[in-house]
Amino acid sequence: MAPSVQVQQVDTSADSITESVKKIALGVGRTGDGTSNFKGGFADSSVDKLPEPTRKRFEKYGIDISRGYPERPPTEEIPVFIDDATAIRNTPWEFIDRGSKADPEKKALLGAAKEVKHLTKHIGTEIVGLQLSELTDQQRDELALLIAERVVVFFRDQDLSPQKQFELGEYFGKVEVHPQQVHVPGIRGITVIWPELFKKFGPITFRKTLNHFTSRWHTDLVHELQPPGITHLHNDTIPEVGGDTVWASGYAAYDKLSPALQEFLDGKKAVYFSANKYVDRENPLKGTVHIEREHPIIRTHPVTGWKSLYVNRAMTSRIVGLEPGESKVILEYLFDVFEKNLDIQVRFNWKPSQPGLGTSALWDNRISQHFAVLDYEGQEPRHGTRVSSLAEVPFYDAESKSQREALGLSLD
Amino acid sequence: MAPSVQVQQVDTSADSITESVKKIALGVGRTGDGTSNFKGGFADSSVDKLPEPTRKRFEKYGIDISRGYPERPPTEEIPVFIDDATAIRNTPWEFIDRGSKADPEKKALLGAAKEVKHLTKHIGTEIVGLQLSELTDQQRDELALLIAERVVVFFRDQDLSPQKQFELGEYFGKVEVHPQQVHVPGIRGITVIWPELFKKFGPITFRKTLNHFTSRWHTDLVHELQPPGITHLHNDTIPEVGGDTVWASGYAAYDKLSPALQEFLDGKKAVYFSANKYVDRENPLKGTVHIEREHPIIRTHPVTGWKSLYVNRAMTSRIVGLEPGESKVILEYLFDVFEKNLDIQVRFNWKPSQPGLGTSALWDNRISQHFAVLDYEGQEPRHGTRVSSLAEVPFYDAESKSQREALGLSLD
Amino acid sequence: MAPSVQVQQVDTSADSITESVKKIALGVGRTGDGTSNFKGGFADSSVDKLPEPTRKRFEKYGIDISRGYPERPPTEEIPVFIDDATAIRNTPWEFIDRGSKADPEKKALLGAAKEVKHLTKHIGTEIVGLQLSELTDQQRDELALLIAERVVVFFRDQDLSPQKQFELGEYFGKVEVHPQQVHVPGIRGITVIWPELFKKFGPITFRKTLNHFTSRWHTDLVHELQPPGITHLHNDTIPEVGGDTVWASGYAAYDKLSPALQEFLDGKKAVYFSANKYVDRENPLKGTVHIEREHPIIRTHPVTGWKSLYVNRAMTSRIVGLEPGESKVILEYLFDVFEKNLDIQVRFNWKPSQPGLGTSALWDNRISQHFAVLDYEGQEPRHGTRVSSLAEVPFYDAESKSQREALGLSLD
Amino acid sequence: MAPSVQVQQVDTSADSITESVKKIALGVGRTGDGTSNFKGGFADSSVDKLPEPTRKRFEKYGIDISRGYPERPPTEEIPVFIDDATAIRNTPWEFIDRGSKADPEKKALLGAAKEVKHLTKHIGTEIVGLQLSELTDQQRDELALLIAERVVVFFRDQDLSPQKQFELGEYFGKVEVHPQQVHVPGIRGITVIWPELFKKFGPITFRKTLNHFTSRWHTDLVHELQPPGITHLHNDTIPEVGGDTVWASGYAAYDKLSPALQEFLDGKKAVYFSANKYVDRENPLKGTVHIEREHPIIRTHPVTGWKSLYVNRAMTSRIVGLEPGESKVILEYLFDVFEKNLDIQVRFNWKPSQPGLGTSALWDNRISQHFAVLDYEGQEPRHGTRVSSLAEVPFYDAESKSQREALGLSLD
Repeated sequence: MAPSVQVQQVDTSADSITESVKKIALGVGRTGDGTSNFKGGFADSSVDKLPEPTRKRFEKYGIDISRGYPERPPTEEIPVFIDDATAIRNTPWEFIDRGSKADPEKKALLGAAKEVKHLTKHIGTEIVGLQLSELTDQQRDELALLIAERVVVFFRDQDLSPQKQFELGEYFGKVEVHPQQVHVPGIRGITVIWPELFKKFGPITFRKTLNHFTSRWHTDLVHELQPPGITHLHNDTIPEVGGDTVWASGYAAYDKLSPALQEFLDGKKAVYFSANKYVDRENPLKGTVHIEREHPIIRTHPVTGWKSLYVNRAMTSRIVGLEPGESKVILEYLFDVFEKNLDIQVRFNWKPSQPGLGTSALWDNRISQHFAVLDYEGQEPRHGTRVSSLAEVPFYDAESKSQREALGLSLD
Repeated sequence: MAPSVQVQQVDTSADSITESVKKIALGVGRTGDGTSNFKGGFADSSVDKLPEPTRKRFEKYGIDISRGYPERPPTEEIPVFIDDATAIRNTPWEFIDRGSKADPEKKALLGAAKEVKHLTKHIGTEIVGLQLSELTDQQRDELALLIAERVVVFFRDQDLSPQKQFELGEYFGKVEVHPQQVHVPGIRGITVIWPELFKKFGPITFRKTLNHFTSRWHTDLVHELQPPGITHLHNDTIPEVGGDTVWASGYAAYDKLSPALQEFLDGKKAVYFSANKYVDRENPLKGTVHIEREHPIIRTHPVTGWKSLYVNRAMTSRIVGLEPGESKVILEYLFDVFEKNLDIQVRFNWKPSQPGLGTSALWDNRISQHFAVLDYEGQEPRHGTRVSSLAEVPFYDAESKSQREALGLSLD
Repeated sequence: MAPSVQVQQVDTSADSITESVKKIALGVGRTGDGTSNFKGGFADSSVDKLPEPTRKRFEKYGIDISRGYPERPPTEEIPVFIDDATAIRNTPWEFIDRGSKADPEKKALLGAAKEVKHLTKHIGTEIVGLQLSELTDQQRDELALLIAERVVVFFRDQDLSPQKQFELGEYFGKVEVHPQQVHVPGIRGITVIWPELFKKFGPITFRKTLNHFTSRWHTDLVHELQPPGITHLHNDTIPEVGGDTVWASGYAAYDKLSPALQEFLDGKKAVYFSANKYVDRENPLKGTVHIEREHPIIRTHPVTGWKSLYVNRAMTSRIVGLEPGESKVILEYLFDVFEKNLDIQVRFNWKPSQPGLGTSALWDNRISQHFAVLDYEGQEPRHGTRVSSLAEVPFYDAESKSQREALGLSLD
Repeated sequence: MAPSVQVQQVDTSADSITESVKKIALGVGRTGDGTSNFKGGFADSSVDKLPEPTRKRFEKYGIDISRGYPERPPTEEIPVFIDDATAIRNTPWEFIDRGSKADPEKKALLGAAKEVKHLTKHIGTEIVGLQLSELTDQQRDELALLIAERVVVFFRDQDLSPQKQFELGEYFGKVEVHPQQVHVPGIRGITVIWPELFKKFGPITFRKTLNHFTSRWHTDLVHELQPPGITHLHNDTIPEVGGDTVWASGYAAYDKLSPALQEFLDGKKAVYFSANKYVDRENPLKGTVHIEREHPIIRTHPVTGWKSLYVNRAMTSRIVGLEPGESKVILEYLFDVFEKNLDIQVRFNWKPSQPGLGTSALWDNRISQHFAVLDYEGQEPRHGTRVSSLAEVPFYDAESKSQREALGLSLD
């Protein structure tokens, strides 16, 4: 019944265990929790399912999909152990937000647009009549400022190469290169956002979408030492109906709190974790674990100087210094502030006005959460390329103000 | 310190108490909980604040606002006691849904439209290029069917008189006449939806909007013996930015539940209550109380034959037959099904493409909840006229199917 | 259908309305929410149901029940309006806690006892072999100190007259005289605790005990300007099996919180309300309302100097300065700290070792909650007399320490 | 930075991976979650900390602690993989409850006792004046019936050898032998319950006791195919103050539910899991997992025929057939029914009346939860020996009745 082990013959040295774990990781592969894969390259190619608009875009701009699609980093570069994974980008570097150099009136950008539509009062603006690929540096700086103020900015009808998208991302910050996730072949900084790939973990079903890891409120890459500021998702293939994304403003969420709760959270830290999981070298059998990082739970935005509530249901585990039960009820409340106050959200349908063109959303992860609506249930193609521009080490400035305070709006 | 009462001299007969209460109701007026007002006519006129587009519409169509605006029913017709209020429309009448007579393909309606846009997969369709005032009866029947299927249907750029709106409401069912709420002068079936009026109960402030009784998930008039099917809200004045409304589908909410929970709820009843409150004749000091009514918690739609989850956070108090604590946790869960599953919601911005025209939303209250977003904080005018067409006594047909079951979609 | 009111003839002066309300209060009587009764004297006499041990005790000590039992204050002294009710005992008076004068070692009291049993580590001590009626002032002072330290102290096998109980209560503070609740005939400061009386509001049933207002976690009289310190409940009639009471320690509850949450609550206030309800003179129809009072949510005990968490599920409505949703989740958490941590509770069975004698519990309301277990379902008699000694205006001393901190115990 | 692996040389056969995992298990040992240990024998001996009363009892009855204390099964018998662990006792065997043979009046047992004290109405009885070691088979049968009726039965002042305790356990059913937990040396069926051992996983601290895996509401060994009926815990060492245990009745919990919720749960199954965790052979890196077993969520007791609610917060993961969110809110409610209704609980202090003797509690796990109060914080010794008598495969009999229904008590 129970396995018979010859204890005295077992080599239990640290080196031996490390080698055993690597062997298991590569032998078993995916760890079954749907988040990690230690095999790289083109092993899981889904190139034959690539939507036509995406294929045309790649062809037009010289993306080589002849070896497969999408690409994953080489196996030997994918970390197996949590200490190796945590060590990636673990050294601070200096970031200067492009928005800080912009004309506060943003005349070069807004003046050039055919139309500037504020989609709601507190979040979301659509710029009509400009191509992202053709923005001047001055306009880019002003766009960075506009995003910092409006949280998310949209551009429909874009003809945008992956290369240009990457270049714009590099302009805004340091492009994030994921150690494990799939990317556009040949360009490791462009993550592929393609629900077709989720089907490997099981069907996307109507009843369970809310539990699905792809369709829930989250903020990208919060576990990084310097998490992304601007993320730019360009969807080149969009369902005929549905597939909206919803964003919520962290500035406005902060302003929803009572002064007493604001004061309680000001200066506190929370623990944020990665989507992917890795093996604990000291205890390989306890299960793969997330990379964890502490950041201020209230962040100050370096350009606007406004405070923002920096939590999200998917990847914030606890408030530092509280008992587990205390942290749980307060975080649950804060998640609901984002999710239940519809006046601090914008819901966006990606459909372009001209078929064949794509739509871009550029949002600031420092001051937002988002949620991808799966109402099309993976029955229609949707494909996007995402570039995340890493920004500053999150900080809290005790002298900074809330958005409403800074704008002189009523605080009641 | 304590009041001295000459007990022996007090006339405590029922008649005497009834008269005392009426005296208090008229003397004190509004009962302080913000929902009841026992004074009628034009006493609270806000005519000087009427937005310009509304004024023009009224002028064009001969609505007389010379005595004030809005109008309330005459004082002598406003019930003070809960038994009187409950007695209103307490006799069943036969309702035949216009949608039941419609061409299932809806060719007359859809064929005449310039464009038919499904705004999401499960809820919400916009019809472009038609005037509601000009629909034929055949098109009206098909519209009723379309609403029954899509939950809510939108028409922008409408030139619509209150009289025509009323007449369309009468076509769809029996127009609800509220015993107490404000209406367009001279037409008691057209309720005024004008956030300006809420300010009498205190300012609409950013931090507290979610607690505000006007900005939360609800279904209209659920306390009626025969609650409304189609409600038609025509907004003639719309904020430049914001003021969206969000709807959620009761069909889809039902399909989100496990078969086990569906079976548990099938055939059960819940208690629904009115927005307004009235005095309990037997116990006048215990506080004004809501009109309460039991309906099936799972309703079958008479036209589609689909099951719908009929609960809403604002006006569903309990599930009949459960202990209070049991009812509370299950209702709370059901409310969240509507509120947290973004794939069963549609968010609509009312702005017309042509200034000076209005926008209409027609939704089926039997199969939906909605939420009015107050992001404009009452700082910009928004004004609408609402006609609610009462429909059948809510019923549950054990043979009926869920929407996905009927449409042959995956139930997982 | 709707009542016809001759508006022009109604006298709606304030005086007239006040008189109308009084007429209703006396005509309708109990307001139906089970907490208020504006008729006084012996109107509701239940003397024939008085348990035999109680009857004997009253006979022995000359309590006259010939006019009925229990007694209520005279009708003319029972306040109808909330402003009158709030005005009662609304002027601060100086309180000196008897425990502050006691020998810290409590030798006179503990040395005289046959046995001193600590029932749990953190709360509850039983003194064996002493009669409360025979304590010297020195012993009484030491008892006050012991209660302040152990939260609740028990004495079985007591032969105690109501008069002596009252006199002991006067020694500990100012005996509370309730404007409305039932008392021992002739002694207004001795409240009758007799579940038999609850039956007037409906049967005490097994399934609903937790919802029953008599069987839930609460602290006595928190709405007073100077709420009780020591409450002394003497049960002269006790069920053969069951009828326990459970107490929980507010000192220990405070020590269960993280330092961060302690710091958040230190110095904040909460709103506490009365069990009974009264009419709002300005708005008589909105329903009777509780007396409300703000106190520090963390109290410092004047004798021990220890901090205590001062909340209870039954009668704490909100934390001052927080949004309603914030207050709700934090209070709910704090209630659970008391209710779910069984290591800070003591459960006591009242049965004496000698039949015919009674059992006394003396607890400090400033630092505790309690819960009366209704497992006997009112099927067996249980009767007690309660004297509450009002204490200081609740205060928070920023220099005070938690119990564990003061005792040098581990704070982890 | 990332590890370099020579992919082509890795042996990823199943056998090779199995051997690698065993090597890790033995090399790393405890998996860090505090529940598993794959090393057996006397490796972790705490013999020097053994309390004096335990040492004397062992000495008197010939328990050999010369090799260490406590003992764990041999390493080669401790399962590493979940499939091996699940396979233990996975074949049904016939169980006949001794209570089914008993005289319903239990005259032999109750007549011999000096006193029979019902500690509360619904749960808990203490038998005074009998030695468990001297019971006749007739008395043992009657004791089994008494436990089935009263949920838990106590005997103080017992002089009980481990051998006699084991023998009594064998009489009541098949004694559970744990594959991994510590036992009395030489007798694998007697589990050691000794808080001193928990300290290896970190200190037992006041603030965190509720989160501590040893101090929370649970039922023993619910993951077994045939979980224990009667568990007999004999505490030979007891703190001077504190260390109570609290039990709650599953019969009474069922009777607390509304008929509608009872009907919903009747016949449903839930998933129960083990305290200990093991490696998933197919996916060794995903983390050790619990043994899981489905049982009816409402059980019928084979002797009384009464229905019991069979859930506990610590080891019930979900209700079969419900969506995760549905299951969570309903289970949470059911846990609270046990935990918040103090009228279905008994709290017991283990202190004997004569020093040097032990106290026994015998409870029926089929119809109860329990909670060990850690108010002594591990500062005083507490030591017990536990024998669990496995009983029938849990079943639900649709014809069975609730306790109150069977006893003819009010169901309201």
